[in-house]
Amino acid sequence: MEYRLLSAIKSPADVKKLDESELPELAAEIRDQMIHTVSVSGGHLSSNLGVVELTIALHRVFRSPEDKIIWDVGHQCYAHKMLTGRFDRFDTLRAPDGISGFTRRYESEHDIFSGGHSSVALSAAYGIAEANKLKKNKNYTIAVVGDGAFTGGMVYEALNNAGHAGTGTKLIVILNDNEMSISKNVGALAKYFATIRANPRYFRLKAKTENVLNHIPLIGRKLAKILFRLKTSLKNRIYKSTMFEDMGFRYIGPIDGHSIPHLVDALRGAVEANYPVILHINTVKGKGYELAEQNPDRFHGISAFNIETGEKKLSAKSFSDAFGEFMCAAAEKDKRICAVTAAMSLGTGLENFGKVFPQRFFDVGIAEQHAVTFAAGLARGGMLPVVAVYSTFLQRAYDQIIHDCAMQQLKIVLAVDRAGFVGDDGESHHGLFDPAYLNSIPDITVYAPATFREMEHSFYEAFYKTEGSVAVRYPRGVEPQLPEEYTYTGEDWQCTGDPADIAIVTYGRCYAEALEARRRLAEEGVRVMVVKLTRIKPVPKEAVQFAMQAERIFFFEEAQRYGGIGETFADKLFQYGYRGFYRNTGIQGQFAAQNTVQGLLKFYQLDAESMVQAIKESEET
Amino acid sequence: MEYRLLSAIKSPADVKKLDESELPELAAEIRDQMIHTVSVSGGHLSSNLGVVELTIALHRVFRSPEDKIIWDVGHQCYAHKMLTGRFDRFDTLRAPDGISGFTRRYESEHDIFSGGHSSVALSAAYGIAEANKLKKNKNYTIAVVGDGAFTGGMVYEALNNAGHAGTGTKLIVILNDNEMSISKNVGALAKYFATIRANPRYFRLKAKTENVLNHIPLIGRKLAKILFRLKTSLKNRIYKSTMFEDMGFRYIGPIDGHSIPHLVDALRGAVEANYPVILHINTVKGKGYELAEQNPDRFHGISAFNIETGEKKLSAKSFSDAFGEFMCAAAEKDKRICAVTAAMSLGTGLENFGKVFPQRFFDVGIAEQHAVTFAAGLARGGMLPVVAVYSTFLQRAYDQIIHDCAMQQLKIVLAVDRAGFVGDDGESHHGLFDPAYLNSIPDITVYAPATFREMEHSFYEAFYKTEGSVAVRYPRGVEPQLPEEYTYTGEDWQCTGDPADIAIVTYGRCYAEALEARRRLAEEGVRVMVVKLTRIKPVPKEAVQFAMQAERIFFFEEAQRYGGIGETFADKLFQYGYRGFYRNTGIQGQFAAQNTVQGLLKFYQLDAESMVQAIKESEET
Repeated sequence: MEYRLLSAIKSPADVKKLDESELPELAAEIRDQMIHTVSVSGGHLSSNLGVVELTIALHRVFRSPEDKIIWDVGHQCYAHKMLTGRFDRFDTLRAPDGISGFTRRYESEHDIFSGGHSSVALSAAYGIAEANKLKKNKNYTIAVVGDGAFTGGMVYEALNNAGHAGTGTKLIVILNDNEMSISKNVGALAKYFATIRANPRYFRLKAKTENVLNHIPLIGRKLAKILFRLKTSLKNRIYKSTMFEDMGFRYIGPIDGHSIPHLVDALRGAVEANYPVILHINTVKGKGYELAEQNPDRFHGISAFNIETGEKKLSAKSFSDAFGEFMCAAAEKDKRICAVTAAMSLGTGLENFGKVFPQRFFDVGIAEQHAVTFAAGLARGGMLPVVAVYSTFLQRAYDQIIHDCAMQQLKIVLAVDRAGFVGDDGESHHGLFDPAYLNSIPDITVYAPATFREMEHSFYEAFYKTEGSVAVRYPRGVEPQLPEEYTYTGEDWQCTGDPADIAIVTYGRCYAEALEARRRLAEEGVRVMVVKLTRIKPVPKEAVQFAMQAERIFFFEEAQRYGGIGETFADKLFQYGYRGFYRNTGIQGQFAAQNTVQGLLKFYQLDAESMVQAIKESEET
Repeated sequence: MEYRLLSAIKSPADVKKLDESELPELAAEIRDQMIHTVSVSGGHLSSNLGVVELTIALHRVFRSPEDKIIWDVGHQCYAHKMLTGRFDRFDTLRAPDGISGFTRRYESEHDIFSGGHSSVALSAAYGIAEANKLKKNKNYTIAVVGDGAFTGGMVYEALNNAGHAGTGTKLIVILNDNEMSISKNVGALAKYFATIRANPRYFRLKAKTENVLNHIPLIGRKLAKILFRLKTSLKNRIYKSTMFEDMGFRYIGPIDGHSIPHLVDALRGAVEANYPVILHINTVKGKGYELAEQNPDRFHGISAFNIETGEKKLSAKSFSDAFGEFMCAAAEKDKRICAVTAAMSLGTGLENFGKVFPQRFFDVGIAEQHAVTFAAGLARGGMLPVVAVYSTFLQRAYDQIIHDCAMQQLKIVLAVDRAGFVGDDGESHHGLFDPAYLNSIPDITVYAPATFREMEHSFYEAFYKTEGSVAVRYPRGVEPQLPEEYTYTGEDWQCTGDPADIAIVTYGRCYAEALEARRRLAEEGVRVMVVKLTRIKPVPKEAVQFAMQAERIFFFEEAQRYGGIGETFADKLFQYGYRGFYRNTGIQGQFAAQNTVQGLLKFYQLDAESMVQAIKESEET
């Protein structure tokens, strides 16, 4: 495609210059570019295809960046990026140093708030709207929030707070209702949205009814009395008929989210309200790409694919796949085992579990806090719940792990997926915090298996051998190739190589790197032992004492260094009287950028070559 | 009072044996005991006085512990404790080894879920209800949740999830509506509850209207058509008129929460539903104690007081008071400064700020997640927001600090109150986690001032000298008495005493203990220098290197040891080449019990005497 219109757009001002009749063509160009780019780079496709018209309409009506558009999660900002001066670089999507798949403040003044996690946009937008009020700034703040994000509690905290802001609050919340959160939308709210969707005439009927009630003839005393009460007592209810109106917003909708003229009209109407508005639009995920419309879930977050067939390259079995298989087998044997997911049944490998054990499978929506405490309730009721969740999203439930699980000594098992670098999703999605935040919590045990078999064993230990709450963390992607000298032991820690003057201590994905470093150093005649922790909390005392046989100890951790396991190891070395050399390598107080996993390991000096270098350098000093 | 009835109640079965006519007397005895105990021990009074009748009704209708009653927060469980075998020990309320002021699982089989933090009860209760379904157990699970807790997002996550559970789910949510959360209830939801409260007849009217609509005469074609639509399209809306019904619950209410017969009837009605039910009851905070009814806020959480006059002992100026004064002065000078609180304006010292600067004061409800991201929005809009929050409650916003503040390099200032031991509220409320969880976050600076003046200086640094997000943490209670050798420096760290072979390194409240230990050791001829950190993240490099002049370094931290600052210090000692003795003391993987602050410092070997002992012991080895 030629991208006649798109290639001429350097800023939102250029969108406004187009004739209305050209906009469908612009939308088509945007879609074509999206599909082609994502087919190569991978990324979020369904959600982005769904908001092309909305994005165009927003940039027709509002003046960005003075008016501030905040995309919740940010996984639907591709069209926004193309229309705000980033079309020419869009082919670098998700590549190292390329365009991010989410909004990033450092990337453009039009990216108002960096995204990645769900349900936060309204809170941020309301903050900006209040700041504008204080500064007597008349610009608008617009939050675009998907229906899936409305299963997250923060949205209600923000609605409750913003809903009493009233006249003069220039805040528009666009509820982008695509009948689908990341997994199938669940819960009462989905039903509620469906009711509104199914009955658009109801909102027109409201106006007519009101009219009739105002002109109703008096027909008999009793009826008149009732109808009078109906008018006075029910009028408000009939008018304030949505939950959003109950919460203090003006409600407009539902609007066809693929009609630019309708969207432009509705947005102008929302501006006239001069009041917090919820604008409810209906969109189709995957719109304009038939394969994605038919199967929006598969094209939500996708790796490179063939545009004609929609086929992905067959990928090897991942830790998530292995986890899913293990869960099915374990639940077959133990009727207490339940699985809980926060709208991530596909990503965490639980799809099949949900089909085989529907009664013991709970998809609670994008609600990590509730997921963990709900699991605590299941445990309190005698079940053995496993909460499968990405490391980065489990950050949401830190307090619930402390207060509702560990403090109560309840046996819940956290299956912490995507632990470590995740690659191209970048800084908002890397799982680099869980070792530190779990480290701080008493009465919890944390395993960091390096292979599928170790993962299964860790869950077995978690289910049947460990008191209290347990986390098992494992990385995104496939099982590493370990050399023959690795043998499975089923122990909390193990050492590869005879005791030596140099020790590498590590866990998880870095273990394979450490064994490779050991091999390379051995070729140069440098003997290294590799102490691998499978249980990282509590750190096995014997592992520390074993490592202390070395004169130089190198700890490598694919996680935040501050508060992490390497610091606990340092403290324990002092505690047990070690007086040698210790060097700890982790991610030191930074948010890691988007890059390949291998690129990130290298950048943070956690790959085999960096390990070799670190050991050689220490010899020179 | 004689407590004729109460003293005979050893379990809920005894409550059921009483004649209905005796129940008002029982309620009076419970209230008398509550008022007398709390007047001595301190505790939560208003909320407990409000639920006396509810508690009696619950134990008349349900069979605890088979039926499971979960008290949200747990600050209203005193009557429950008295009726479940703990009346004879109730005078030990909040004392060391005494009865907890919150539900505690280890205390009684009738305390189903340990409490302390808000808005979690429904999640836990729904988990238990689902577990019961799986086990074909027919018992009921009841969650008692205050209207204030409904400002917390977790409640909606749970409502959304539980609202589609449907028939056979034996779950009752009691919305205890006392028109008052901890601070004045704010936001749209409060208005919504008020609407329902103000109009109980509306719910009776519904039934009548329905009746009329079913029997309406046909009077003219147009009206008939409209009314027919009104019936078919609006009937559901008229019946499903509360937000809760929209979300899939049966709604009963509002019920007089001080009428035991009405409550018993309503609870029996809820049982018959065999469906998730919201039972909405109206109660009066402080009911039965006039002073508390008049001023429920003051008697929410209160220290010992005079029953006749309601007067508390005058307490000395606290860190919270000093913070509040500082904020008023700072906001006078800098128009960008805003204050955000999550329903804790009184506790955090912001009451006066709210009066003087109402436009720049935001009480967002019990919604720490939203509070932090809303503040990030204020900052993005050019304001300088300060979020005042207790350390323990800030745990809720860990992800928001990472994702919405630090990752965006937005300048928000966290005023972390109640950092360290809080004393008699016990394990759910100690502020022992924030050093560790803040330690793990990149691009955030953390100050831990030891005096009021240092606190003011820390905020000044936070406002005007530090990039990115900043936390200032300070303890509950009064300023410590520091000896004359302490001088205020305004530096990130300072040393008291000349360089010596022994160094104590510490921060915050332990600093006073360290100076006292130094004094005592000096009397015995042992020279110690005290390195005090005012900035604990990043740990000042110079402080580490200065301490390294000592042969023995002792780090003391009133916080969780794992992931804490003492471990970071250990790691840095290795990094800078230290090869001496290092001993780190913190709370090592435990939840600290309720006790006096001094008792806890002693128990965890963080008081002056323990410091002296630790140093002496190390000399012997």
